[in-house]
Amino acid sequence: MINRFNGLIAVLCCAGLVSACLSDPDSADGGVMPEPEVVSEPPASVSGMARVSSPDGALEFMLDASSSAPLWSLTYDGQTVIAPSALGFRFADEAALERGLSVTATREASHDSEWEQPWGERRFVRDHHNEIVISLRETSNDQRGFDLRVRAFDTGIGFRYEVTDGGNRDQTRRITEELTRFVVSPKANAWWIPGTGWNRYEYPYQKTHIDAFSDAHTPLTLQLPDDGPYIAIHEAALIDYSGMVLKQRRPGVLQADLAPAPDGTKVTRTGAFTTPWRTVQVARDAVGLINSDIILNLNAPNTMGDVSWVKPGKYVGIWWEMHINRSTWGSGERHGATNENTRRYLDFAAEHGFDGVLVEGWNTGWDGDWFFNGAEFSFTQAHPNFDIEALSAYANEKGVALIGHHETSGHLTNYETQMADAFALYGRLGYRHVKTGYVADVADLVRVDAAGIERREWHYGQYAVNHHIRVLEEAAKHRIAINAHEPVKDTGLRRTYPNWLTREGARGQEFNAWGNPPNPAEHVAMLAFTRMLSGPMDYTPGIFDLMPNGPDDENRVRGTIAAQLAHYVVLYSPLHMAADLPENYEARPDLFQFIKDVPTDWDRSIALDGAVGEYVVFARKDRASPDWYLGAVTDDRPRDLVVPLTFLEEGRNYTATLYRDGENASWRAAPYEYAIESRRVSADDRITLNLASGGGVAIRFVVEKE
Amino acid sequence: MINRFNGLIAVLCCAGLVSACLSDPDSADGGVMPEPEVVSEPPASVSGMARVSSPDGALEFMLDASSSAPLWSLTYDGQTVIAPSALGFRFADEAALERGLSVTATREASHDSEWEQPWGERRFVRDHHNEIVISLRETSNDQRGFDLRVRAFDTGIGFRYEVTDGGNRDQTRRITEELTRFVVSPKANAWWIPGTGWNRYEYPYQKTHIDAFSDAHTPLTLQLPDDGPYIAIHEAALIDYSGMVLKQRRPGVLQADLAPAPDGTKVTRTGAFTTPWRTVQVARDAVGLINSDIILNLNAPNTMGDVSWVKPGKYVGIWWEMHINRSTWGSGERHGATNENTRRYLDFAAEHGFDGVLVEGWNTGWDGDWFFNGAEFSFTQAHPNFDIEALSAYANEKGVALIGHHETSGHLTNYETQMADAFALYGRLGYRHVKTGYVADVADLVRVDAAGIERREWHYGQYAVNHHIRVLEEAAKHRIAINAHEPVKDTGLRRTYPNWLTREGARGQEFNAWGNPPNPAEHVAMLAFTRMLSGPMDYTPGIFDLMPNGPDDENRVRGTIAAQLAHYVVLYSPLHMAADLPENYEARPDLFQFIKDVPTDWDRSIALDGAVGEYVVFARKDRASPDWYLGAVTDDRPRDLVVPLTFLEEGRNYTATLYRDGENASWRAAPYEYAIESRRVSADDRITLNLASGGGVAIRFVVEKE
Repeated sequence: MINRFNGLIAVLCCAGLVSACLSDPDSADGGVMPEPEVVSEPPASVSGMARVSSPDGALEFMLDASSSAPLWSLTYDGQTVIAPSALGFRFADEAALERGLSVTATREASHDSEWEQPWGERRFVRDHHNEIVISLRETSNDQRGFDLRVRAFDTGIGFRYEVTDGGNRDQTRRITEELTRFVVSPKANAWWIPGTGWNRYEYPYQKTHIDAFSDAHTPLTLQLPDDGPYIAIHEAALIDYSGMVLKQRRPGVLQADLAPAPDGTKVTRTGAFTTPWRTVQVARDAVGLINSDIILNLNAPNTMGDVSWVKPGKYVGIWWEMHINRSTWGSGERHGATNENTRRYLDFAAEHGFDGVLVEGWNTGWDGDWFFNGAEFSFTQAHPNFDIEALSAYANEKGVALIGHHETSGHLTNYETQMADAFALYGRLGYRHVKTGYVADVADLVRVDAAGIERREWHYGQYAVNHHIRVLEEAAKHRIAINAHEPVKDTGLRRTYPNWLTREGARGQEFNAWGNPPNPAEHVAMLAFTRMLSGPMDYTPGIFDLMPNGPDDENRVRGTIAAQLAHYVVLYSPLHMAADLPENYEARPDLFQFIKDVPTDWDRSIALDGAVGEYVVFARKDRASPDWYLGAVTDDRPRDLVVPLTFLEEGRNYTATLYRDGENASWRAAPYEYAIESRRVSADDRITLNLASGGGVAIRFVVEKE
Repeated sequence: MINRFNGLIAVLCCAGLVSACLSDPDSADGGVMPEPEVVSEPPASVSGMARVSSPDGALEFMLDASSSAPLWSLTYDGQTVIAPSALGFRFADEAALERGLSVTATREASHDSEWEQPWGERRFVRDHHNEIVISLRETSNDQRGFDLRVRAFDTGIGFRYEVTDGGNRDQTRRITEELTRFVVSPKANAWWIPGTGWNRYEYPYQKTHIDAFSDAHTPLTLQLPDDGPYIAIHEAALIDYSGMVLKQRRPGVLQADLAPAPDGTKVTRTGAFTTPWRTVQVARDAVGLINSDIILNLNAPNTMGDVSWVKPGKYVGIWWEMHINRSTWGSGERHGATNENTRRYLDFAAEHGFDGVLVEGWNTGWDGDWFFNGAEFSFTQAHPNFDIEALSAYANEKGVALIGHHETSGHLTNYETQMADAFALYGRLGYRHVKTGYVADVADLVRVDAAGIERREWHYGQYAVNHHIRVLEEAAKHRIAINAHEPVKDTGLRRTYPNWLTREGARGQEFNAWGNPPNPAEHVAMLAFTRMLSGPMDYTPGIFDLMPNGPDDENRVRGTIAAQLAHYVVLYSPLHMAADLPENYEARPDLFQFIKDVPTDWDRSIALDGAVGEYVVFARKDRASPDWYLGAVTDDRPRDLVVPLTFLEEGRNYTATLYRDGENASWRAAPYEYAIESRRVSADDRITLNLASGGGVAIRFVVEKE
């Protein structure tokens, strides 16, 4: 990792305090870890309170252990964001860690550094926070307890449990409940998806008062009443633990609810362990939630060494044609994954500069009810229609890579048994990316245990969480990056495992083919402030034939064609698909030019303006050039937005090419009305964006040669 | 038990087939068990299907084991009520019983009998059903499997699993999931309360499309689309098992979700065992759900021998005055449970013919935060203000009994440790009824295990379910009947344990004192078709001061004073409270007369008319006289109902005394407007009920002497 020092940022790092640094489990990147400034052993009589504030002083985390059970809380400019909230664990095999805990030590530190992403929405990430480690031990038995490591950033806080081993490194603990609560105003507004729905994270977001849901996935976006600040609750660095859903125990009282293992316990760990970070972002304006790097900063640095082989890019593929029922995954007359069809896509990709071609249905196992027959899939045996050796050679000749596809239907064991061979095959043939898939009911992933008993795992339970990491590590051996569909949610692990390029984990484009109803017009403006807070998404944008089932079918794109271009900028993914059929792009070369031009790796990204689920405006600077891009989308309502171009480099002129909605455009009546226009602009200009109902705008700003 | 043979009912009982009868686990009542009519061992090739129909043929249960997993379904007049739905179990320690099951035997029987309730909403209950026992065994291992015992009544079906012990009587099984599903139309309407809310069952019912909830308690009332039939899903005979919530896995797909034990498993059983009955009532009209006895019929007969000491009745008590903040449970200047105050209530009860006086706050442990300090309660130590010996003697002199109170705040172990002594004390002092209480978060009942570790139990988990039965058995030793508040839901166990007189288990009257908001105007018309399907409820009706916090406070009764009288007939409870303060009754002796007159034990009960959550009309015949009573309530909307009096005995005249809303009455503007009038009526008459907004009517029909 690279530490970049510049004039703005003072780095306080642990010069000469190596032992303290090494005690931090994240210290793999060496010199950027916090300096312990205070190590205190408060007398028992004043052991009740501990605090840490953000560098700007606006956020304050407080722990109060003065009563029977420790409670944490959070204020923002003095206003309560999180009211006193519980902490702790219950276990299957020993007493809970919940009450009778005292603060036995605190250790404070400050940290400011910058690190570089190998790829990302921005190249350099500043990590500026204050930290406190609060040691809580039972008064009755000081071998039992945990440390709470809390980091306060200007844009939010994170804390995690560091559970000590009580002097027994072999102690296995079965956690039956994590008691962490987040108590917010019962009058808050919430934008949420149900936390235990069968279809994993693939639901349209709802806006309601907070008390309308019983459980919600994270990131959960809230706004405190009376135009109060925006909050997003999530977690970071979900490793060897179960994913957290927020269960509403009573109005505004959200409690961690971990996905269970098949035996009903939640998490099993041996010896000392740390939990994922529990995070609360806070921002005055909704876009402030987006312009935050705390999730990445709370993840450990890259553990994979040289990852220059991980390549962002754009791809096309044999995928949408199945969703609109022109071809099939399984074999038969309409089998999509044929040699001929694959060559057609490879030719198209090469001609238009795409990096990869995804082919789904290339392997055996698709014939039958594949939703339930995950055991049938082979990950090394190509279907006879798909000459994998010849097609790979053809792709390599053309400078394009095939993108692998591993649909598991959630049969984890079948996949794990084959995956070493599967990645070796792809590695040998020059594949660089693999899309994995876990289409299954959220609670019905299949694992065959050592005794041969079939167990059912949750998509975001501890076993599945670790499965994804095993896949990343196996793929890395063959220099392959992963794009996981029906995955566990993102918690920023791309920092630690940079070959986890992107994933799904939300309602994607395919719902517009058959979603009944399709994604609502507000969907992308909703995703930007919710799902996208967690990390990149392979939404598969770029549908040009907006009514593939015909004009009378409910299932269609509820957006304009200009909005489809805007999605490439609004939705960050290092790997973006151009999802439509080649012929639909060839029919509209003028619009297609934007998809060909837009990069997927960025030097900087800024959410400029927006309102949750209503509209959002992003500006992003290309990593490989001085060019900027802007994307904006709106919901059902047309709107005019005035955007100052202050993000452009001062003193330079740019040619801005706008791909915008036509004057009479609207997603319902005139989705194909668009205009493309160019003008000269500079950082001193303002630009007015005229968005239609369901509309959008995409702009490319190319620096004029001097 | 008494079998009553009459001309209408043919009894098919197991003459000469004792061995078959004894194989039925419910056969404790001897001669009323079904005759096995067919014992078949179908050849494997046709082993896939089994059916049973209701006596009238309208309902048909079908099991289809022809594909990989057995599926059950239910039709009503040929229309699908329950689409093919899963069955089975997952276990912690062995493979699931879910797939690869074949029908290895079926046994059919018919049954028709009548049995007598010691007390109840009707004296004689007809049990008329057809039965099939379907043996399902694994093709790979015929030691493993279960029998499905299905009973089809005209008003609904019930089935339960009878899980064999696989040849090992000592085998302990930890169930991690019961897989039973109830797949209904995703367009059904639902009237529901949330299944996992902290406040147990104490929520206002909501009417929505079924897909609006993620989990719901049972009884869950549904209506199929297009004015289809009404359905109620529930369970019967919940013993040594965890209560079932219905989790909506996808729209219309409801799956059993059992409350977990502290270690995350759901149920632990040793050897062969049976589950509670899973019940589906079906009715063309909503009142048909009420006029059904299948829950009682699916419970085992009385196991307690002579229960003539279990007495229905009416009571007053020191209770409402705490809810309206005139006195306190804890000690201090306003302590309610003083000698003086208790004597005042005893005098009032004796004067007006009440059977009992409840005194809450009589014991030690109330001072402090009693919601969380259940360990502090003594159940034998009276507060110094309460001379239990002298007050009991005074009560006995007056012919009134004190009603005991055991608030546990959910600390099960503290209560179990003391309860033998506590019931012995009450028994010695002449108490006949005890109100138990479990005020605590639904998931936070406290149990201290054998190792001294504090565990948290769910209100409707296996341990708490069994706790209630231990309480009943201990109480029975001292001839005491139980009225459980914050209980597990009713599943008809009053048949087996007739000292379980009544319980709470829904939002009761106290919410009108402080509910913020109070119970909605529709609440009782909602309860009648939902909560009340499970059994009696101690709603504590009869509030005469409808605005105890003053006219400007939101917390008030959202109903008229006449409706308060109607509740005594609409809501069945063998033990009904007159909940208000004595002085409020003394101020309105004319209305109070109805409360004094109305019985709490019935010969017959009929739901005459109604619509879920809108209105309902009940007629009930006194068990001790030929008199009839009628009660009707409406929601927010006034309505006029014409009721034929055909329930009255033909050829006799009755003096009907109506307690009705005044002409300008409405709960909001004029709740105290009422009229009392008498008229002569007979079975040939029709009566028009004029119900105000939030209104009601109560009628007493007294037979004229001939």
